[in-house]
Amino acid sequence: MEDKESLVKMDFENMFSTAIGEKHGLEEEKTANFASSISEYTGEIQKRRGGDIGFMELPYDRENAERIKEKARKIKTWCKNFVVLGIGGSALGNITLRDALLHSFQTLSEEDGNIPRIFVLDNIDPALIGDLEDILEGQLPDTAFNVITKSGSTAETMSQFLHFRELLRETEGCNPTQQMVLTTDPDPKNSLLREIGERDGYFMLPIPRNVGGRFSVLSSVGLLTAAVGGMDVDELLAGASIMDKRCQNKELEHNPAAKYAVLLYKLYQEGKHISVLMPYSSRLRALALWYCQLWAESLGKKDGLTEKNIFQGPTPVPSVGVTDQHSVMQLYQDGPFDKVLTFIEVRKNKQKGVRIAEKDIEKDLQYLSGKDFDELFRSEFLATRSALRDKNRPNCTISIPEVTPMTLGELFMFFEYAVTYSGFLYDVNTFDQPGVELGKRYTYGLMGRMGYEKPSL
Amino acid sequence: MEDKESLVKMDFENMFSTAIGEKHGLEEEKTANFASSISEYTGEIQKRRGGDIGFMELPYDRENAERIKEKARKIKTWCKNFVVLGIGGSALGNITLRDALLHSFQTLSEEDGNIPRIFVLDNIDPALIGDLEDILEGQLPDTAFNVITKSGSTAETMSQFLHFRELLRETEGCNPTQQMVLTTDPDPKNSLLREIGERDGYFMLPIPRNVGGRFSVLSSVGLLTAAVGGMDVDELLAGASIMDKRCQNKELEHNPAAKYAVLLYKLYQEGKHISVLMPYSSRLRALALWYCQLWAESLGKKDGLTEKNIFQGPTPVPSVGVTDQHSVMQLYQDGPFDKVLTFIEVRKNKQKGVRIAEKDIEKDLQYLSGKDFDELFRSEFLATRSALRDKNRPNCTISIPEVTPMTLGELFMFFEYAVTYSGFLYDVNTFDQPGVELGKRYTYGLMGRMGYEKPSL
Repeated sequence: MEDKESLVKMDFENMFSTAIGEKHGLEEEKTANFASSISEYTGEIQKRRGGDIGFMELPYDRENAERIKEKARKIKTWCKNFVVLGIGGSALGNITLRDALLHSFQTLSEEDGNIPRIFVLDNIDPALIGDLEDILEGQLPDTAFNVITKSGSTAETMSQFLHFRELLRETEGCNPTQQMVLTTDPDPKNSLLREIGERDGYFMLPIPRNVGGRFSVLSSVGLLTAAVGGMDVDELLAGASIMDKRCQNKELEHNPAAKYAVLLYKLYQEGKHISVLMPYSSRLRALALWYCQLWAESLGKKDGLTEKNIFQGPTPVPSVGVTDQHSVMQLYQDGPFDKVLTFIEVRKNKQKGVRIAEKDIEKDLQYLSGKDFDELFRSEFLATRSALRDKNRPNCTISIPEVTPMTLGELFMFFEYAVTYSGFLYDVNTFDQPGVELGKRYTYGLMGRMGYEKPSL
Repeated sequence: MEDKESLVKMDFENMFSTAIGEKHGLEEEKTANFASSISEYTGEIQKRRGGDIGFMELPYDRENAERIKEKARKIKTWCKNFVVLGIGGSALGNITLRDALLHSFQTLSEEDGNIPRIFVLDNIDPALIGDLEDILEGQLPDTAFNVITKSGSTAETMSQFLHFRELLRETEGCNPTQQMVLTTDPDPKNSLLREIGERDGYFMLPIPRNVGGRFSVLSSVGLLTAAVGGMDVDELLAGASIMDKRCQNKELEHNPAAKYAVLLYKLYQEGKHISVLMPYSSRLRALALWYCQLWAESLGKKDGLTEKNIFQGPTPVPSVGVTDQHSVMQLYQDGPFDKVLTFIEVRKNKQKGVRIAEKDIEKDLQYLSGKDFDELFRSEFLATRSALRDKNRPNCTISIPEVTPMTLGELFMFFEYAVTYSGFLYDVNTFDQPGVELGKRYTYGLMGRMGYEKPSL
């Protein structure tokens, strides 16, 4: 696996003054000043590798991957519906994998007859839960669940677990211990869900202690969905390991994640506080949502490591091309100079070879005649990028040949490394999320949980 | 219809210094200073009503609504799949209607046997188009299309039109003039699509000249989808007309859209440049995307009406509760003080009455026992709102009893009025989108259209 080459290319040109002018572009030499810091951060990250930072070790856990593949094979012998119960980092990676690598209308598609319909229940809206139950009606015995919560106590996921456990217990032909996988912390001292699983004999998968929810897509959290979905788990992990190698490079110029982190940080310092991720691919729409969690939770912090009350962090915004050219792009091109855009370009979209039309085309539409949709799609991307550049709007492009397990694995690892480098630059703890504790306590109070007070409303 | 009362309530309390402190909250009296401007703007808006501003007249076009209902009845006698071809304002309103008012898994649901599966093709990604064609395979004779482009020349929509027209022409048992509705400008001089429709005898629906794409959901653009989807079109329009009445009020304190516009504008001036719309309802997820287009295209402008090169406009960001509590909320609570959040609260989510669980609940989860998901869902909303307030983060709440055609109609009209008032405050032309022209020209150049030059890449 080490011999394969990275398929991801970066193009940072449109972030520099040479392309977009001095007022909004970066100076090459100023970013080069970060070279020694990056070398130091790289050393520290690799020193902490497998210690308190675990995400980059995930591609090498062959044993867990094989165990998951085996479990997926068994699940697929009987399962028609595969339901993920999870929220945040337990949901977004799964949605991203499904949407990127499976059919755009996966639950309707009969193309891959042996792939169950995959649902990710990422909310506790009763309307949503009720609707999912309609869809599962009469099929509960053929439905598998993956209950994912690292802490084993997340209110949303545990309430879903209790609900579906009771439903399975009360439905003929169903058995929760046979139909539910529990994915959580390996230690029952840290996870009530693990404790329940050990007591009652559920099949369980681990989330390593040193891997937080938003960094967990390449752990059991995402891999079971990938394997059940018929994705090539080995290629996914191989892609991640290739990028892991690239991101261990101490030289700024040869470390794509470090370079990306530095450029975005410099632009943040110069007032570009909003970071838009805009894949030109309807399949990567969800990747932008995954990215938003990664960026927002890791970098949006009240306290820095050396200074309190910094109230910092770029605001990530999800977008998708070409769709959003007809929506938010007006603002991105003409509004305040407070944004930097990261495009993801898919160079080869032709797998479906969809031709627009050839016969009897009206005169004013002749420019579309005989063309593939791919040509129009790519032209719009290039045109939009050029227009942004010509309006002095900083942007960069991450380019992949195709959306495959390999390239997606690379992208996950790239962004996870990039946010880790960013954490050093912003001087924050990348791996915690203390800001949401207050809301959790207030929720417990309102729900009448012992030891918690109600907030004033 | 005038007798019905508005069901939408506003709560602006958490935007004021009395709730969130002087540093980040507004002063009541300062916003009151806008009273006379608002009175003036209200007069001007109503003077221009039906002139160059048309959206508020849409609820009263009974004739068009009846014609659409009749057409929908006919379509539903033979149609199994209803496909909207459109992008931007031609897509987002339709997606919002479908997701808000139909089953969460509409294309899988057999609950409403006579509602066709509704697809909105809002991109030209060849992978997406290819996948849709897989799903329609063998069902093309049972598939209706609504081709929506006001200008009748949008590259994305016209390429989709050409493609599916050719496909229908070449497929046995299909006929594009029978299966496609063309929704566009009423005048063939302004719309090639109208010209084609008149020449070849397509059924056509109008988009009024004075209604731009992002304001068009209550025109033919959205109404055919609504009627085909079995939604109560009359209630939808009634809701809109109720809010129209409220937003004609010249008194700031009694005009919810004007008040909302003023408060957001004041907060923008004080550095809250990001406006997050966060419905606590998985059904209203798409409404946030619709809102983002409305806000971004209307207010994100290079030139003001009286001043050039202002490069202004708030950045709208879509969110959804409770899901995003486990994603971007960390940033919203602890990051920079550059945001204002607008919640949409659905007071009655109980229609499905989904109980979490009652039997054999583990001790640490007893607080969930016997509760409805609705109670947890609502508690999390209240807890999150209180936490934001206690962290001095400005937020407001738009509250509706249920997601119904009536309340959705009110919400559409509310936001359309609010952005219109905002346009006056920001001193911009709310109704154009000149910023995206450059990208369109570049696209034509790259596609080899006569008279357009290629950009440098």
